[in-house]
Amino acid sequence: MVKSGDSKKRETVTAGLIIIGDEILSGRTKDENIGYVADYLTEIGIQLREVRIIGDDESHIVEAVNAMRGSYTYVFTTGGIGPTHDDITADSVAKAFGVGIDIDERAVAQMRERYSADKLTPARLRMARIPHGADLVSNSVSLTPGFMIENVIVMAGVPRIMQVMLDAVTPQLRTGAKMLTRTIRVEAPEGDVATGLGRVQAEFADVAMGSYPYFEKGRLGTNLVLRSTDEDLLGRAFDATLQMLESEGISDFQPVEG
Amino acid sequence: MVKSGDSKKRETVTAGLIIIGDEILSGRTKDENIGYVADYLTEIGIQLREVRIIGDDESHIVEAVNAMRGSYTYVFTTGGIGPTHDDITADSVAKAFGVGIDIDERAVAQMRERYSADKLTPARLRMARIPHGADLVSNSVSLTPGFMIENVIVMAGVPRIMQVMLDAVTPQLRTGAKMLTRTIRVEAPEGDVATGLGRVQAEFADVAMGSYPYFEKGRLGTNLVLRSTDEDLLGRAFDATLQMLESEGISDFQPVEG
Repeated sequence: MVKSGDSKKRETVTAGLIIIGDEILSGRTKDENIGYVADYLTEIGIQLREVRIIGDDESHIVEAVNAMRGSYTYVFTTGGIGPTHDDITADSVAKAFGVGIDIDERAVAQMRERYSADKLTPARLRMARIPHGADLVSNSVSLTPGFMIENVIVMAGVPRIMQVMLDAVTPQLRTGAKMLTRTIRVEAPEGDVATGLGRVQAEFADVAMGSYPYFEKGRLGTNLVLRSTDEDLLGRAFDATLQMLESEGISDFQPVEG
Repeated sequence: MVKSGDSKKRETVTAGLIIIGDEILSGRTKDENIGYVADYLTEIGIQLREVRIIGDDESHIVEAVNAMRGSYTYVFTTGGIGPTHDDITADSVAKAFGVGIDIDERAVAQMRERYSADKLTPARLRMARIPHGADLVSNSVSLTPGFMIENVIVMAGVPRIMQVMLDAVTPQLRTGAKMLTRTIRVEAPEGDVATGLGRVQAEFADVAMGSYPYFEKGRLGTNLVLRSTDEDLLGRAFDATLQMLESEGISDFQPVEG
């Protein structure tokens, strides 16, 4: 069994993501944040381990935040921090941590850059409600900030705003070894490669090997995806997989990007 | 406070969805199933309440299935029922229910329609492993079935195959009152409508009112979405919302589809 060298190991940094909003669950809005956050975290060396999509419901939010913040290095949330009655994320996160929440003067100061005094209505000031002990996460698009409390980062649901908040908070995050990927596209159904892949997996236990079927033009094919933080080990597992395909008599396959 | 008439109430039928697969969490594959299932269930009168995306990990699958099957009328899973070593959904679901799992002759019979005897390799026969007590869910695309055990429906992850399995199982499902939706697109930021919408919400407590900001061409706007299973009540709440917008001095809004 080929193991990765310990000297190359860096800390594993993990994350959970909570998407808050009835509109995703009803199908009215198609989520754009999951794929973006997944790509982004992979790129900076944080492994996304779980995503939950829940409604604008206090008990669901409290439960999800508390279940995930103890399990992962970081928990990101999107949605529910606007000015309307259904925006209850900040209050729910405060409740999950058992801390108070009030209008935060630092947040109000940031909002003043955008809103004149007469536009800072009570509804908009709701957006400045920040749990005690949280740091602000700046928002260069619409200026109303998100926040980070302990290991939980609370962001807006609008994709463009979520994205700048993610950029803003990234310098404060620990990151681990970057997960590297090699992919082989095989023009054969999974069943033709399953046994051989299992053999290569047994040999390279420290490389995560996944097999992902696709269905195109009426035919089933398979993407074999090898993942590891160790580039050398990944290269050897990749070569072993190519050899396995040849020895199984499969001729139509090719390495692909991503 | 305007309540819906009890005589119009039908059973509320709810669902959870578990997306199983490391490839979604790594960002390599962008999920296409959540939005499809959300739309589909809304259309047939089942309310999707929660989605979890988890990796190909037994303890995560067992935990998610057991957490959700007691909370919702139905739980749907996608992914992890193929022939490779990382396909562990069927075994994990059996474990969640505390039942045995074996190669199921009904499943083998369906697969024989597609695979000749020499193609029914041990790896492919893994796909015929069905927990004891489950019913099969047929798959008109590639013939390898999914299954339903008690209130948990286990489907493939490939979107086209998941879709035909969902069609196949639907006649067996209880469905409730269909959730109806009215949407108003308002060319103003949420903060301008938040107070008024809160007032209308207080008047129509039985109508779910959501406010969803969007960011287009450098400007923030808001979709107001009203949802109820009671068409009359929804119509009255919709009219009240239009009146509210006018009385708040907001002129640029229009009802939209969806």
